Amino acid sequence: MNDAELIKRYQTVRARSEALCAPLETEDYCIQAMENVSPSKWHLAHVTWFFEMFILVPYAKQYRMLCEKYAHLFNSYYETAGTFFPRPQRGMLSRPTVAEVYSYRRHVDTALLELLAHPPEQHAADIRQRVQLGIEHEIQHQELLLMDTRYNFSINPLHPVYHKVALPALNDPTPKMAWQEFTGGIVEIGHDGDSFAYDNERPRHRTLLQDFKLGTRLVCNAEYLAFIDDGGYDRVDLWLSDAWRTLNEQRWQAPLYWFKQGRDWMHFDLTGAHTLHPDEPVSHLSHYEADAYARWAGKRLPTEAEWEHAAGRQAISGNFLDSGLYVPQPAQQTGLTQMYGDLWEWTQSAYLPYPGFKPLPGTLGEYNGKFMSAQMVLRGGSCITAQEHMRASYRNFFRAADRWMFSGLRLAEDIL
Amino acid sequence: MNDAELIKRYQTVRARSEALCAPLETEDYCIQAMENVSPSKWHLAHVTWFFEMFILVPYAKQYRMLCEKYAHLFNSYYETAGTFFPRPQRGMLSRPTVAEVYSYRRHVDTALLELLAHPPEQHAADIRQRVQLGIEHEIQHQELLLMDTRYNFSINPLHPVYHKVALPALNDPTPKMAWQEFTGGIVEIGHDGDSFAYDNERPRHRTLLQDFKLGTRLVCNAEYLAFIDDGGYDRVDLWLSDAWRTLNEQRWQAPLYWFKQGRDWMHFDLTGAHTLHPDEPVSHLSHYEADAYARWAGKRLPTEAEWEHAAGRQAISGNFLDSGLYVPQPAQQTGLTQMYGDLWEWTQSAYLPYPGFKPLPGTLGEYNGKFMSAQMVLRGGSCITAQEHMRASYRNFFRAADRWMFSGLRLAEDIL
Amino acid sequence: MNDAELIKRYQTVRARSEALCAPLETEDYCIQAMENVSPSKWHLAHVTWFFEMFILVPYAKQYRMLCEKYAHLFNSYYETAGTFFPRPQRGMLSRPTVAEVYSYRRHVDTALLELLAHPPEQHAADIRQRVQLGIEHEIQHQELLLMDTRYNFSINPLHPVYHKVALPALNDPTPKMAWQEFTGGIVEIGHDGDSFAYDNERPRHRTLLQDFKLGTRLVCNAEYLAFIDDGGYDRVDLWLSDAWRTLNEQRWQAPLYWFKQGRDWMHFDLTGAHTLHPDEPVSHLSHYEADAYARWAGKRLPTEAEWEHAAGRQAISGNFLDSGLYVPQPAQQTGLTQMYGDLWEWTQSAYLPYPGFKPLPGTLGEYNGKFMSAQMVLRGGSCITAQEHMRASYRNFFRAADRWMFSGLRLAEDIL
Amino acid sequence: MNDAELIKRYQTVRARSEALCAPLETEDYCIQAMENVSPSKWHLAHVTWFFEMFILVPYAKQYRMLCEKYAHLFNSYYETAGTFFPRPQRGMLSRPTVAEVYSYRRHVDTALLELLAHPPEQHAADIRQRVQLGIEHEIQHQELLLMDTRYNFSINPLHPVYHKVALPALNDPTPKMAWQEFTGGIVEIGHDGDSFAYDNERPRHRTLLQDFKLGTRLVCNAEYLAFIDDGGYDRVDLWLSDAWRTLNEQRWQAPLYWFKQGRDWMHFDLTGAHTLHPDEPVSHLSHYEADAYARWAGKRLPTEAEWEHAAGRQAISGNFLDSGLYVPQPAQQTGLTQMYGDLWEWTQSAYLPYPGFKPLPGTLGEYNGKFMSAQMVLRGGSCITAQEHMRASYRNFFRAADRWMFSGLRLAEDIL
Repeated sequence: MNDAELIKRYQTVRARSEALCAPLETEDYCIQAMENVSPSKWHLAHVTWFFEMFILVPYAKQYRMLCEKYAHLFNSYYETAGTFFPRPQRGMLSRPTVAEVYSYRRHVDTALLELLAHPPEQHAADIRQRVQLGIEHEIQHQELLLMDTRYNFSINPLHPVYHKVALPALNDPTPKMAWQEFTGGIVEIGHDGDSFAYDNERPRHRTLLQDFKLGTRLVCNAEYLAFIDDGGYDRVDLWLSDAWRTLNEQRWQAPLYWFKQGRDWMHFDLTGAHTLHPDEPVSHLSHYEADAYARWAGKRLPTEAEWEHAAGRQAISGNFLDSGLYVPQPAQQTGLTQMYGDLWEWTQSAYLPYPGFKPLPGTLGEYNGKFMSAQMVLRGGSCITAQEHMRASYRNFFRAADRWMFSGLRLAEDIL
Repeated sequence: MNDAELIKRYQTVRARSEALCAPLETEDYCIQAMENVSPSKWHLAHVTWFFEMFILVPYAKQYRMLCEKYAHLFNSYYETAGTFFPRPQRGMLSRPTVAEVYSYRRHVDTALLELLAHPPEQHAADIRQRVQLGIEHEIQHQELLLMDTRYNFSINPLHPVYHKVALPALNDPTPKMAWQEFTGGIVEIGHDGDSFAYDNERPRHRTLLQDFKLGTRLVCNAEYLAFIDDGGYDRVDLWLSDAWRTLNEQRWQAPLYWFKQGRDWMHFDLTGAHTLHPDEPVSHLSHYEADAYARWAGKRLPTEAEWEHAAGRQAISGNFLDSGLYVPQPAQQTGLTQMYGDLWEWTQSAYLPYPGFKPLPGTLGEYNGKFMSAQMVLRGGSCITAQEHMRASYRNFFRAADRWMFSGLRLAEDIL
Repeated sequence: MNDAELIKRYQTVRARSEALCAPLETEDYCIQAMENVSPSKWHLAHVTWFFEMFILVPYAKQYRMLCEKYAHLFNSYYETAGTFFPRPQRGMLSRPTVAEVYSYRRHVDTALLELLAHPPEQHAADIRQRVQLGIEHEIQHQELLLMDTRYNFSINPLHPVYHKVALPALNDPTPKMAWQEFTGGIVEIGHDGDSFAYDNERPRHRTLLQDFKLGTRLVCNAEYLAFIDDGGYDRVDLWLSDAWRTLNEQRWQAPLYWFKQGRDWMHFDLTGAHTLHPDEPVSHLSHYEADAYARWAGKRLPTEAEWEHAAGRQAISGNFLDSGLYVPQPAQQTGLTQMYGDLWEWTQSAYLPYPGFKPLPGTLGEYNGKFMSAQMVLRGGSCITAQEHMRASYRNFFRAADRWMFSGLRLAEDIL
Repeated sequence: MNDAELIKRYQTVRARSEALCAPLETEDYCIQAMENVSPSKWHLAHVTWFFEMFILVPYAKQYRMLCEKYAHLFNSYYETAGTFFPRPQRGMLSRPTVAEVYSYRRHVDTALLELLAHPPEQHAADIRQRVQLGIEHEIQHQELLLMDTRYNFSINPLHPVYHKVALPALNDPTPKMAWQEFTGGIVEIGHDGDSFAYDNERPRHRTLLQDFKLGTRLVCNAEYLAFIDDGGYDRVDLWLSDAWRTLNEQRWQAPLYWFKQGRDWMHFDLTGAHTLHPDEPVSHLSHYEADAYARWAGKRLPTEAEWEHAAGRQAISGNFLDSGLYVPQPAQQTGLTQMYGDLWEWTQSAYLPYPGFKPLPGTLGEYNGKFMSAQMVLRGGSCITAQEHMRASYRNFFRAADRWMFSGLRLAEDIL
């Protein structure tokens, strides 16, 4: 990517963050309905701080901060970059206002584009790399912004609607679940080459797979409902010990965003509240629920190596943010499908370093590496992930109890 | 008060709520920085719901609610009036928007004024009484709105300013503390007659006082600082057991809103952050701190009966909301002063029913009576209380650990 | 009381503590089933520490502590007497063993009796007073020991029995509730004279009573059951706000120690589990429940001044610890009865200082005064209180939510 | 193993549990100083219940339970075997007494030995397998009993001593850390064959290793102290995010059981409190600390496959329970040493199912499988593990924050 392309991409991605906020009222930008989510305005400011902190401050000599306290307010978790405002209180800050946050974005954009136009030679390569990282970082937060908005809206009895969309007509019923077989052996996974990837996707390395098969598509609502109707949430033998405790403490009886209206199961998503669509992939599952469903079905979740091995052969296309739907869609093809887009797929792999893993040097090493503890890997992206952000080697990670990301479930099975 | 006067008062008070919000940005209306406070827009809507719920719904036949879910969202704690949205989550609601809340106010105002213009005869007296109660209720929430705004702003490192005000020049230094003596005996306290008062101020009844004296003015910052400098916050012998635990858990070292800048004590109030003014009455004390100070000073807090007996002889005037300052002012007179306005005065009386107390019938009985447990009485109003709202018999109440209301401290002593 | 009598009383009371432990297994001495209770061996050691700390250490020159760490382990809450082991962890200490605690008692007894035999003249009066206080303190802990044992046993599914006792045959059914009237006016309450009383009972002072009447006996189980059967625990209008929250959080549906076996209400007490006896006074109520019952009955709780005024005319006799039953008994007489013994009676009075209250000087001032916050007064003693410990002016106090003490309920009413 | 040998082994292991309790006072059997530990008497009863529940109840027709409630009291976590008493409250039960627990052991021993003498033919194989499992289970609890006793004693200011032991004289200083290299490739790990192993060690399967090297011995106290002295506990860059939060919440500044006396580091173990021995392997580390140390040292922890591959070539011998020391010993040999015994070694592997893992059928499937969530694997046994219990394939597992087991740390490194 040359400099002009980089500038163009910067501008496009920055603009998209703001476009995604177009449906929001000023009030919607400010709230934080649980600790895990952040206010939209915080996301807008934090991604801006990232460019300021890691590029402008070290490399743009003339740069003047708009407000020094923003460094405290909009640092997320970079311990070695200074203090940060407590995460659970992000929704308690009315200032800076939304308008001021937009001004902050303008302020940084101006300085950054100027720097990109005339980068100091000895830092040009670093700057370019960090801008690229900052862009990917902002794309990640676009997904968070939609995830968080959905959660924030979901606890409001008024059921606010983020957007109205005409979902595409479906030609056919969803194909029945089928199984694609893969032969084991030594395979390579992880990112290779110079193109952008996060540190946690490296190094590419060899691993050993047993023979296995994958479900050809994501598990859908109708299938998951059969699990519920079979007493899935009441059968202790199906659940991990941590899962069972969580289920009871939080009184789970269905995936997040499902609720009952009379006898009907309803579903709240970015387009509002709807009757549950049976063919839509089941979404907003914790790892615990995905694992329990798999056990009930006599299957298991794939490992991340299995998933990557299978996905590596496929084109990166699917129902991404780019479709403008922000809703997962029923599978429409036979054969291995939905590997990319629609929903992140839980794997049975813990999020741990690859053999030979080296985090980025300095503060940016905090980006990924320090979270390699008690999290599980998800793969493949979702209907709110930008397609350009996706790679076969991309490792997303959440705690096993988390449910507010766009997570779904694909089954796997050993071939004995 | 005749009907025209009542209508006028309704309009005046309703307008004042909105005027008090004029300095707020949209974002400021939405936040809730701790469980005890509410977002400004919630206050604006809740006081409106009060008129809707207790007057329009029972008495205005044609009335149509703007949104039925508001009954759930804006009920505060009236268990017998239906469900209510969890208090700690009020700051998690972006909708209704601020604009929608103002529309709700208009909607109810229109219907209420229409009803007041043509009240159904058989309910006219009830309506009038309830409108009066609703007005007093809204005035109470005006005070809460300012208290809560101050707290909400205080946790923001940007230190937002609610209003700028030119404080009046002081003629003289604050007079030294002196003591006014009162002779005991059987006295009457509580509200008498038909004019408006809350149920908890009734019935007027006889009580027995010992001889006592009162400090002529509120304790000021300089005096409180002497307590701090004497190790007041480290001397366990000065504190009640609950107080000591609270002090340690919350790491109190000074009143709420005091903070240190280098060696200087600073103070955050509705006008922003300032150097502490030595003559200003010390404010935002918990009962625990007021009690510890009094013990340190070899004095005690007054009982509510002592306070009311002394205050009953004074005109109800002082530094109230009406002054437009919203900041307590140094005492400027010798003799018993500051009994009204400036700061609520902690008493040593638990908030308990008067002999013969009868709560209002029905749901409105929940207004005051059900809180007669583990709270302490404060008296006299503050610089953010409307003067028209005050009475000698007025009983305010908070928990002993609370500090975000405009509370201060007057000393008392036995005459032996 | 002369010195010989004091020595005798010391020996008698010390022996009684140990006699009360006779039914315990070694294991029973060690447990702490909730934060509010203490292990029996801790009680035995703490009361011993009290004599050591406040008498032997200051006044017995030759005294050598058996173990210096006991000062830390067995200090309860005397902040100015040194550190103390965290209360919630008292049940986590296996050492000192029970046998070692008894040795500690012997060690202190020997030294104390020696000191009492030859008190240094200049301290003789102080020593005598402190021994008397220590004796009363130990008697208080005898009651706690039984309360705590009952609670500790209650959570064990094996339902251990503390003692078996033949309850006396009842001549007659409990008399119906009647009302005794009292004329108001200025009365005196509080302890007078030189005989022993706690600091919180002083000074005797004048107070004003309205005309009132008292229920002639304690409310009994059958009457309380009528409240339950009338939906008492589901009717929010009967409960204080704090009470309703507590009831819901703790899922109260009946007094502590009641449980259902099939359709029958059962009751666990120091003699084991039994069918509920309808005539027995209802016990182990929180203040919240006593208050709700009174509201349901259209009555109220007495104030402590009313209670003391009424009780002051009666002989101090009743079903105390001395009866050896440790179970409250149905009222057997008409006229005002059960004022003393059987169960502590909740009042509607907050536990606050009397006018002119002065705590004991020094560390012993922590005995009572620092708890005058958010507690309610109970009066009259119970079936596990020693009769010699009781006075008309005796003020017991607990938090409104507490239920593990032997608390009951007498109704009061205004005479209008 | 024939039947006579099985009976012999049953008797030996049962006797060892009781022998390990010989140093305990009755009181020591009853306490539970944190949620993770259990009272000794609970361990003694629970392992007995295991034989009763899984062997006597299904297979011994004539068997009569000593007490039916024991099934509730002594079930640990087998959800499908009935209810269980809440784990955090195990220390709140004084009954059954220690003597009663021993009677329970006798009762079950008698019945079980009778059954083993005359097993019903059609169940003989099942019985034999389950007895073997029950024996291994009891051996596991012998380790827990010592771990828990150490913790229970550690919080007592009196520092009780479990046993006095003469540690062996050391011939030489601990050898310097050296590195043993291993060539990667496809290797097999997991248990093979019919001999006893837990379900989680199966199936034996192939996995791929990179080239790696292992530290020849455990990291010792002196080396760990260098990490502390280098600011290890204050350098956020060395810690995982979860680790840093835990360290701050729990205020870790050293491994568990280290404390300072003046300037000296002390260490509390089963033999009491001592000056820290520099050559002793560092123990009672969380995974977080082991991981941070490794990062500081520029190394990493081994994977469990690496460990097993290396250990599989070694004889299973070392400083186990059998040595009677119960204290880890300094390494005394050059070359790869301490792989077995002394301390469990943290790996960087999450505790997850092996490819093709099948839990035991029925309730016994809850033994291991349901804990495969958010735990890390430890390998090799410790100085309180019985040697007969150990296998190269043995997988122990704890949460990353746990520190009360006898855990230590061996370093690994990639060969590039």
